[in-house]
Amino acid sequence: MPTTHILLIDCPDRKGLVHKITGVLYQNNLNIISNNEFVDRETGHFFMRTEFSGEYAKTHLMDELHSALGCEICIRLSEKQKKNIVLMVTKEHHCLGDLLLRHEYERLNARILSVISNYDVLRSLVEKFNIPFHCIPHDGMQREEHEAKILRVLGDYNPEYIVLAKYMRILTPNMVNLYANRIINIHHSFLPAFIGANPYRQAYERGVKIIGATAHFVNGNLDEGPIIAQNVIPVDHTQSAEDMMQAGKDVEKVVLARALKLAFEDRIFVNGNKTIIFD
Amino acid sequence: MPTTHILLIDCPDRKGLVHKITGVLYQNNLNIISNNEFVDRETGHFFMRTEFSGEYAKTHLMDELHSALGCEICIRLSEKQKKNIVLMVTKEHHCLGDLLLRHEYERLNARILSVISNYDVLRSLVEKFNIPFHCIPHDGMQREEHEAKILRVLGDYNPEYIVLAKYMRILTPNMVNLYANRIINIHHSFLPAFIGANPYRQAYERGVKIIGATAHFVNGNLDEGPIIAQNVIPVDHTQSAEDMMQAGKDVEKVVLARALKLAFEDRIFVNGNKTIIFD
Amino acid sequence: MPTTHILLIDCPDRKGLVHKITGVLYQNNLNIISNNEFVDRETGHFFMRTEFSGEYAKTHLMDELHSALGCEICIRLSEKQKKNIVLMVTKEHHCLGDLLLRHEYERLNARILSVISNYDVLRSLVEKFNIPFHCIPHDGMQREEHEAKILRVLGDYNPEYIVLAKYMRILTPNMVNLYANRIINIHHSFLPAFIGANPYRQAYERGVKIIGATAHFVNGNLDEGPIIAQNVIPVDHTQSAEDMMQAGKDVEKVVLARALKLAFEDRIFVNGNKTIIFD
Amino acid sequence: MPTTHILLIDCPDRKGLVHKITGVLYQNNLNIISNNEFVDRETGHFFMRTEFSGEYAKTHLMDELHSALGCEICIRLSEKQKKNIVLMVTKEHHCLGDLLLRHEYERLNARILSVISNYDVLRSLVEKFNIPFHCIPHDGMQREEHEAKILRVLGDYNPEYIVLAKYMRILTPNMVNLYANRIINIHHSFLPAFIGANPYRQAYERGVKIIGATAHFVNGNLDEGPIIAQNVIPVDHTQSAEDMMQAGKDVEKVVLARALKLAFEDRIFVNGNKTIIFD
Repeated sequence: MPTTHILLIDCPDRKGLVHKITGVLYQNNLNIISNNEFVDRETGHFFMRTEFSGEYAKTHLMDELHSALGCEICIRLSEKQKKNIVLMVTKEHHCLGDLLLRHEYERLNARILSVISNYDVLRSLVEKFNIPFHCIPHDGMQREEHEAKILRVLGDYNPEYIVLAKYMRILTPNMVNLYANRIINIHHSFLPAFIGANPYRQAYERGVKIIGATAHFVNGNLDEGPIIAQNVIPVDHTQSAEDMMQAGKDVEKVVLARALKLAFEDRIFVNGNKTIIFD
Repeated sequence: MPTTHILLIDCPDRKGLVHKITGVLYQNNLNIISNNEFVDRETGHFFMRTEFSGEYAKTHLMDELHSALGCEICIRLSEKQKKNIVLMVTKEHHCLGDLLLRHEYERLNARILSVISNYDVLRSLVEKFNIPFHCIPHDGMQREEHEAKILRVLGDYNPEYIVLAKYMRILTPNMVNLYANRIINIHHSFLPAFIGANPYRQAYERGVKIIGATAHFVNGNLDEGPIIAQNVIPVDHTQSAEDMMQAGKDVEKVVLARALKLAFEDRIFVNGNKTIIFD
Repeated sequence: MPTTHILLIDCPDRKGLVHKITGVLYQNNLNIISNNEFVDRETGHFFMRTEFSGEYAKTHLMDELHSALGCEICIRLSEKQKKNIVLMVTKEHHCLGDLLLRHEYERLNARILSVISNYDVLRSLVEKFNIPFHCIPHDGMQREEHEAKILRVLGDYNPEYIVLAKYMRILTPNMVNLYANRIINIHHSFLPAFIGANPYRQAYERGVKIIGATAHFVNGNLDEGPIIAQNVIPVDHTQSAEDMMQAGKDVEKVVLARALKLAFEDRIFVNGNKTIIFD
Repeated sequence: MPTTHILLIDCPDRKGLVHKITGVLYQNNLNIISNNEFVDRETGHFFMRTEFSGEYAKTHLMDELHSALGCEICIRLSEKQKKNIVLMVTKEHHCLGDLLLRHEYERLNARILSVISNYDVLRSLVEKFNIPFHCIPHDGMQREEHEAKILRVLGDYNPEYIVLAKYMRILTPNMVNLYANRIINIHHSFLPAFIGANPYRQAYERGVKIIGATAHFVNGNLDEGPIIAQNVIPVDHTQSAEDMMQAGKDVEKVVLARALKLAFEDRIFVNGNKTIIFD
């Protein structure tokens, strides 16, 4: 199996882009395995993801692409390999446990460098899988002070992505900016319905017949970042808010796992407050 | 096939209710075909729907039930037969056409007495199926004045249910109260997300990955009445707001038809701002 | 809005195809609107669908593509315009009615030239919409004789696609070959479960918890042609075979409409006994 | 919170059953919490599940029910408490891991007494959670000989249910009969499609657009026992058989967990080769 490389391109649209990009790959004797493009008609912006195989020198290829396409273009070259990630959790085990299992059996496409929590309750689960666990309690601390401690630990691990696998505290704009489009959160409702606290209680009170979960990038506004994946399940009047919460956990873990698969395979472009998913 | 009758009971919960209610039916030699009960634990309220067959005198049976159960009980006896309904529409044909077809082939469990619209564009469709069509334009009229005209026409038909099959105007509290829990609306979003105008545009702007539709009883607050049925479909970044709107129409018509089936078979209890569905 | 053209290419895979194809378009000053490619790794076959705008001479463009790509390549050029179709039905109205409504309101992307049936019961529905209806009864006829009559009528209309919208007779290999990959059928089960007659009864007997519908191209083996679209709904023990059949109709009509949308927008390649859907 | 008891009744239908059964409970001062009944019209059979609270003597209550209802009635009284179960697995971790996590966090409604496998590969996972693991290899053994060893271990644990969480060997009729309606299997297809080996490969070859999973009781015919739960996910032409298998794992684990929840809460009646689910 030859190594697969990924080329991500993001620039204003114009005629001939696909032809020119694939031309640079062809002239470098690189073999396209799959190719996805999309043009956002409202903004006139072009997005392309290409998987290719073959030997190449990164600087040389970037130069050729820039000279073919101009310099306002955004090019990323990525290897199809495991991303380094850190998980953040509070007290709920269901998303964390699911990710630890996928990681243990090489189904996550990532290396979990460590798990950070503001409580100690999930330590034993994490340590079963021989992953470092950091408990950083927030009691009696300002948000900034607590987060500074977290950022120090994160800095040591230098992760490509941070996964909020039911981390129930709000991040400061500082942290969000430091890891822009690299923090993925799972929210336990079908956004934009039921933003904020206790969405299952809100769903129960409203009497909805379907509940859901949403995985999204974190930006400066609570639960309003670009949505990556959503899914739903039916509910009915026989279910209490607690029943909905329990049923929802299975949706949450599947939606989060799907969003991470997309992210770790470099299949997501952020386009304003929306995502483009090349699946 | 013997005629089927439906008994609907709604009262504060206490011990022995099912035993006493089924006892009255048994002693009157009535045969239970199916039976659904639910107790709302938060409010301590009891709901029961029983389909039964056999001959009975309505007043006698009501008296026996009241003497067995006390007088604070709410009892409805309904025949399993077609409801009389009036449809209200604006310009969109998809829900209307679907209902007209179901009606034509006896799959609606209702008699469409007439269709009322504030525009004339759907007249030809309605008249293909030999249903009276009333165009009541709203131009240059106050909301109350326009609605008064509608209410006069409705009054002539005396419908059991009014179905807003994409009627795009807001009703006054007066009309909502006159037909409390008897007006069913289809809203083109997965409520409570995207209340109000242009929900598909709102969904597109927010970048959701799933869109939906909601059928609900109309109450005094826009799009906030008790939800009867909801359904969803996946969408992605390749779809414009217009594409989402077109795709959503198939969800809207199926959700509305489902809600009407439930209503016309007397399978819905309104419980505060929620519904209990005995399906 | 400029006219949109569609280029469909289907050939053995090799390096540089996308580059060369997009090059021909670029050099002819044609503007790519969207582009989808897929390589079947098991068979080494390449499929591409490109929407483009601009003025072009068909023969010239075909020649340039062939000289750039070699002659073993299969090229189709299609206009993004309504297809001419004929519907075939037996007695059930639900798919037919749905298609007639979409057609009436320009949502089908096709012109229904006529409807052919082996019974007369759906005549009044079809004629409401001013579409020619041909009743060709099969009583007392051999299959070949009956079909010969149908083929004569079809021949007069010369449709691009034939839609079996619940036509309940088996076609001969002769007819299937005459309209290879141009006959689309809706089967009332989630194929390959419940091939053949009475699938809802089969589903009921088996006690499945989900039922479905399948739209597929017709080939020589009953219910075994390439699948275009499928969908499902949950069912439970309270539903009789008849209830499942009624509930299934809503799935059937939505699945058929979706398959037709894909076909009429030239979004389907047949790949052996499978389909590639560029959606 | 008072203890909840469950009464399960299964007998030929006749008038007055609900009245008489609820009467016995009422006269014993027992409080009905919820109640579900169903009559199979085709077989004239009655099924009822009642959750109730209050103090009672089992023999006394059974006697009263039998004297009120006759002796051909099948009555089970069950406590709403954890079931004792044994899991059987082969090499795949996804269902096992999911169940171990639910068990660890008290979300399974069962005690996993042990895990039995014909391979040793999942030992480390099981032992992380301090559950006994028995490896009983089948190499060089007749099916009966191998199963005899398994039955001895099972006998020691005396489980109420055996869960085949991807156990890839066929059981003998002897074992199936010993644990009739107490062995639950997860099959990796949407039954009855793709019975037997390699269902994802079969699904891929057939080109289906939806794949699924099925949890069912095991009977004497491979993959043909009463179905408890099913679910599906969409797939498309870009997915290989291996991709479908990986995507399917998330469906398998959720469907199995759902079936176990229903079984362990005594919500399932087996009705011939079908199930009645009181959910």
